[in-house]
Amino acid sequence: MLKIETIRHSLAHILGLAIQELYPGVKFGIGPAIQDGFYYDFDFNQKSGLQTKNLGLENLPRIEKKMKEIIKQDIDFKKKEMSVKQAIEFFKKRKQYYKIELIKDLAQKKGKIISIYESGKFTDLCAGPHIKSTIQLHSGDTKEIINSFRLTRIAGAYWKGDEKNKMLTRIYGIAFQTKKELADYLKLQKEKEQRDHREIGKKLDLFHISEEIGPGLVLWHPRGAILKKIIEDYILEKYLKNDYELVSTPHIAKIGLWETSGHTNFYKENMFPLMHMQELEKDEKDNYEIKPMNCPFHISIYKQKIRSYKDLPIRYTELGTVYRYERSGVLHGLTRVRGFTQDDAHIWCAKEQLDKELILAFKLCFEVLKTFGFKKYDIYLSTMPKKHVGTLKNWEKATNSLKYSLKKVGLKYEIDPGEGVFYGPKVDIKIKDSLGRAWQCTTIQVDFNLPNNFEMTYINKKGKKEQPIMIHRAILGSLERFIGVLLENYGGALPFWLAPEQIWIIPISSKEKTYAKKIAKELFSFRAKVKDENETVSKKIREASIQKIPYALVIGKKEMKEKTIRIRQREKGDIGEMKLSMFIKKINADTKSKK
Amino acid sequence: MLKIETIRHSLAHILGLAIQELYPGVKFGIGPAIQDGFYYDFDFNQKSGLQTKNLGLENLPRIEKKMKEIIKQDIDFKKKEMSVKQAIEFFKKRKQYYKIELIKDLAQKKGKIISIYESGKFTDLCAGPHIKSTIQLHSGDTKEIINSFRLTRIAGAYWKGDEKNKMLTRIYGIAFQTKKELADYLKLQKEKEQRDHREIGKKLDLFHISEEIGPGLVLWHPRGAILKKIIEDYILEKYLKNDYELVSTPHIAKIGLWETSGHTNFYKENMFPLMHMQELEKDEKDNYEIKPMNCPFHISIYKQKIRSYKDLPIRYTELGTVYRYERSGVLHGLTRVRGFTQDDAHIWCAKEQLDKELILAFKLCFEVLKTFGFKKYDIYLSTMPKKHVGTLKNWEKATNSLKYSLKKVGLKYEIDPGEGVFYGPKVDIKIKDSLGRAWQCTTIQVDFNLPNNFEMTYINKKGKKEQPIMIHRAILGSLERFIGVLLENYGGALPFWLAPEQIWIIPISSKEKTYAKKIAKELFSFRAKVKDENETVSKKIREASIQKIPYALVIGKKEMKEKTIRIRQREKGDIGEMKLSMFIKKINADTKSKK
Repeated sequence: MLKIETIRHSLAHILGLAIQELYPGVKFGIGPAIQDGFYYDFDFNQKSGLQTKNLGLENLPRIEKKMKEIIKQDIDFKKKEMSVKQAIEFFKKRKQYYKIELIKDLAQKKGKIISIYESGKFTDLCAGPHIKSTIQLHSGDTKEIINSFRLTRIAGAYWKGDEKNKMLTRIYGIAFQTKKELADYLKLQKEKEQRDHREIGKKLDLFHISEEIGPGLVLWHPRGAILKKIIEDYILEKYLKNDYELVSTPHIAKIGLWETSGHTNFYKENMFPLMHMQELEKDEKDNYEIKPMNCPFHISIYKQKIRSYKDLPIRYTELGTVYRYERSGVLHGLTRVRGFTQDDAHIWCAKEQLDKELILAFKLCFEVLKTFGFKKYDIYLSTMPKKHVGTLKNWEKATNSLKYSLKKVGLKYEIDPGEGVFYGPKVDIKIKDSLGRAWQCTTIQVDFNLPNNFEMTYINKKGKKEQPIMIHRAILGSLERFIGVLLENYGGALPFWLAPEQIWIIPISSKEKTYAKKIAKELFSFRAKVKDENETVSKKIREASIQKIPYALVIGKKEMKEKTIRIRQREKGDIGEMKLSMFIKKINADTKSKK
Repeated sequence: MLKIETIRHSLAHILGLAIQELYPGVKFGIGPAIQDGFYYDFDFNQKSGLQTKNLGLENLPRIEKKMKEIIKQDIDFKKKEMSVKQAIEFFKKRKQYYKIELIKDLAQKKGKIISIYESGKFTDLCAGPHIKSTIQLHSGDTKEIINSFRLTRIAGAYWKGDEKNKMLTRIYGIAFQTKKELADYLKLQKEKEQRDHREIGKKLDLFHISEEIGPGLVLWHPRGAILKKIIEDYILEKYLKNDYELVSTPHIAKIGLWETSGHTNFYKENMFPLMHMQELEKDEKDNYEIKPMNCPFHISIYKQKIRSYKDLPIRYTELGTVYRYERSGVLHGLTRVRGFTQDDAHIWCAKEQLDKELILAFKLCFEVLKTFGFKKYDIYLSTMPKKHVGTLKNWEKATNSLKYSLKKVGLKYEIDPGEGVFYGPKVDIKIKDSLGRAWQCTTIQVDFNLPNNFEMTYINKKGKKEQPIMIHRAILGSLERFIGVLLENYGGALPFWLAPEQIWIIPISSKEKTYAKKIAKELFSFRAKVKDENETVSKKIREASIQKIPYALVIGKKEMKEKTIRIRQREKGDIGEMKLSMFIKKINADTKSKK
C-alpha cells in the first residue's frame, strides 16, 4: 500500500514536471507533501513566459490536465546519488539556482552525498521516498488517485520564508487515495466555510469588528449582546451555586501591580502600551496599564483581610474583560481577538484542600461544557518546564494532584511534558466541535508564583502564617472565542435556550396583530417577537429560516378563532397546530432537558 | 432681626480680635462669612509666639473662650472711611502687610475710598455690614448667639488661594442664631459622618480603593459585586422590557474615533493618556484610547446597516464601564471616581418622535428612581450656551420638546440659562436623599453634534436620507456613585430587595445545622446564608445587626421540633416565631411591594 505522504510528495514532482512543460525556463523552489496535499514554489521569471502576478486560478485546470497526461505516460521515478560538486554542476546547467542554494545548505548539514529524483524530463533534488512509477496512480488498487487530487490555491511565498528574499508563486494541491476521500474532504471544507462564524455573525446580525475602532475589538449588536448575556447569566448562576463569590474589578491599574505580579517580565509583548500619566498631569507619578489578566485584582481583594484556614477555600469569579495585544496578522473573527471576556476564577486553598478543589473544578467544567452540547474533549496535562519557579516538591505535589483528580473524575488525558506555565502545572481542555475540530477552551492551572510575589498568607490551625495555593481557572475561556466556536459547531442554529430570538410570531394579516401581541405577552418568559412588518408571510418565514429562529408561529383567522398557533420548527418545518399552553409546556420541557 | 451672614461676619472679626490678644504680632489675611459659619486666615509668624504647625485643635477651646469674653465686653463695631493713602499708612503702622496688598488691589478696582471696621483694639479692612455691638450677641432676642457658635477646624490655606504664596493658618467656625439650630446642625453632621459610604463600605465589606491599584478605581468585594449586579440586573430587565436593545462594546478604540466625535477637542483633559502603539510594534500606525464615553461605539453599530424610518426609534443600552481622568484631589469614595459603569443608552429618532421619546424617558426615569426609594428631586433644564453647534431652530425645537415632555409628565423644573452642553439642551435630575442632600443622577440630553460628525442617516418616508435626532440618557448615571448615594441614603440598611445578604440562618447549636441548611435550600430564591461558624449566637445576632442583614432566623431545638423559625428583623428586632412558609409569603410580598 502506498503511503499517502509518498503519493502527495510524488504529485508535487509531477506538478513540477507539468509546470516545466507548460512554462519552460521556470525556476523551482521546494515542493513538499503537507497535510491534506502538497505544494510547489515556482519562480516564473521572464523566460518562462509568465509573470508571477499573471498566474491565476483560471490556469489551474490546464495544469491539472497536464499532470493527468503525465501520470498516464507511466513515468518512472528514479533515485540517483551524486557528490555535492556533481549536483551543483548538474543544476547549474539547468540554471536552477534555488536548488544550488539548497545543495549548499545540505552540504553543510548532512555531508557529501546528494540524492536526486528523476521523473521523465524533471529532475529534483530530493531525499524521497517516491512512487516507483506514475502507473501506480491510475491502475491497480490505487487507480483512483489520478482522480483524487486537485490543485486548489495559488499564493505568494518568500523564498525560504524570509521576507528579504524574492517572493515565489506557490501552487497548492490536495490529494487522497480515493475519490470518496476527496469528496469527503471537499464536503467538509464546504461545511467549514458555511460554518465560518464571521459569515454567520453577519447573517445573524450578531457583531462586527471595524477598522475604524480597531482590529480584534468586538462590537456586539443587540442579538449578539443578548447571546453573550445568556451565556454570562448561565455561567455566573452556575458559579454562584457552586460557592464561588462574585467580584468586580477595574480595567486599568498602575503598572507597579504588573511589576509585582511579574507580567512586565514574562508577558510584556502581549500587554498594550502604557498610559503615560505625565502627558496629562505632572503630579501623576505612576503610569497605568490596561489589564491583560484579572488575577492581581482578585489578590488585592483577598489581601484586604487577614484570612484564616476557616475562610479557605476562597473562590472569586469575575466575568472580567481583558486586553491582550496580538499582531494584526493572527487575528481571526471572534476566535482570536485583542479584547475578550473571561469566565475567570481564582481559588485559594490550603495544600490539603488542593485535590478536592481540583476535582470540583473538573466536575463543574464538564457539567458546563455538556450543557453547551460539547461531549468530546482532548485533555492535556502540561508538566514542569525548564524555566520555572517553585520547589520540585511543590511541582510534584501539584502535578500529582492534577493527575489524581483527573483520574477521580474518570478523564483520559495526554501529558505534554515540559509545557506547563513557569509558575505551575496546568490542564488544558480542548473541546471537539461537530466537524471534529479541537478548540482550546478550559484551562486549570496551579500557581506557586503569585501567592509568593504578593506575599499572600492565611493563618493556619497552629496560628501561624502560611501561603495558600492558588488555582487559576476559566471553563469557557474567552467568551468571544467560545461564542465563535458555538456558532461554527451549530452552524448558527443555536439550541433553543441559547437562541437570541427564540420565537417569531407572524400574523397572516393585520387582523391578527392584536392576537399576536397577546401571545407574545403569554410567552413573556421566552424571547418572543411579533413580526408585524408590512411584508408577506412567506418572506417572514424564509427570513426566520435564514435567521435560524427555533420557532415561527403563524397566526391566521383560523388559529385566532380556535385559540391555537401553527408552528414551524427550525429543523422540522411545519409541525402543525397546537394550543398555546401545550406549546409552552413543550418548550419549557425542551429548555429543561437541554440545559 | 440680625441677618445670619452679618452675625457670621462679625464673629470672624471677633475671632480676629481674640487671636490678636492671644498671639500678639499675628498677621491677618481675610475673614469672611461662609455657608454655616465663617473663617479667618492668620500668619502666625515668629513674633506671634506660635508657628503655624503648632496650632492644633487643642487650642480652639481657649480661643473660643476668649471670643466669648470679648462678646461680653459689649464692644462696638464702628465703620470708618479713609483714603487709600491713609489706609495704607494705617495698616503699615500695624505691620499688616496682607491688608496693604488687599487695599492696593481694591484701589485698582473700586476707587479711592476705603472702609474699615473698628471693634475694640481690632481694626479690619472691611465693607461690612456688621452688628452694632457685641451686646447683640448675648442679650435680647438674639441672646443665644453667644452659645450657638463653635470653632471647628484648622486648615492650611495659601494666601489668595495661590500655591506660589505663603501658606496661612485658617480657623473655621460654625455659627447659628439659636442653640437648637446649632444642635440640629451638629446632629446632621454626625449623621452624615455615620452615613459616610466609605465607612459603610468598609463595615459591610463592600469594596475598597487602593493606592497600589490607583485612586478612583473601585474593587468590588463579593457583597459589593452582588449589590452592583442586583442593580444591573434590575435596570437591564427594565430597559429591555421598555424596548431598549442591549449592545456591548470594547473599552478601547483608535484615537481617530474620538477625533471624529470631537472628544479630543472638548474633552481632552478628562481623557486618560493615549496608548502609543509604536512602543509595541512599528507597524501599528494608530494609537488607542480607553473610552470616556460609549456613544461613538453605539453609533458604529447603528451605522452597520442602512436604517429606515420604519426602524426608528432605535434605542441601544449598555452597562458600559468608562474611564475619565479626575485630579486625585477631587476623588471621593464611590461618588467621585475615575472608572465607573453607566446605565447608558442612546436613542435615535425622527424629529416628530422626539416628544414621545422624551416623555417615555422621563416616565421610565421616575419609575426607576422611585423603586430605589427616591421620591424628591431637583430638576434643571439647561438651555443654549454661547458656544454651541446646531441651528437656532433646532435648539428651540429641542428645548421646547424637553419643556413639553417635562410638563406632560407633570414635573416642575428650574431653568439653568446657558448651561446646556455645546451640542444640545439637557435636563439634569438631582435626587434628594434622606438627609435632604441633592445628588446629580439622571441626565437626558439632546444631541445635534454626533449624528452630524458621524454622518448618521436614515431613509425617510419620501425615500430621502435624513439625519436622526440623538438622545443621550442615563438614569442612575454612574452606578458607583449611585451605590454611594444609596448607602448614605439608607445608612447601609438597604431595602430587602437590594441587600446583598438578605437572610442569615443561625442554628443555636450544631444539632440544628442540618435543619438550618434545609431552610436555606427552601429559601433558594433569596440570598440566604447559614451562619454555622463556631461562635456564640449572640455574637452572630450582633454581627447581623452591624452588617445590616434584613432578617436573622434563629433556629433552636424548639423551632426544629415545631418546624418554625424565630425571626429577628433588622428594624424591629425579635418579631416572634413563624412557620417558614408564612415567612416566605411575607418576604415575597415585601419584595413585590417595594420593588
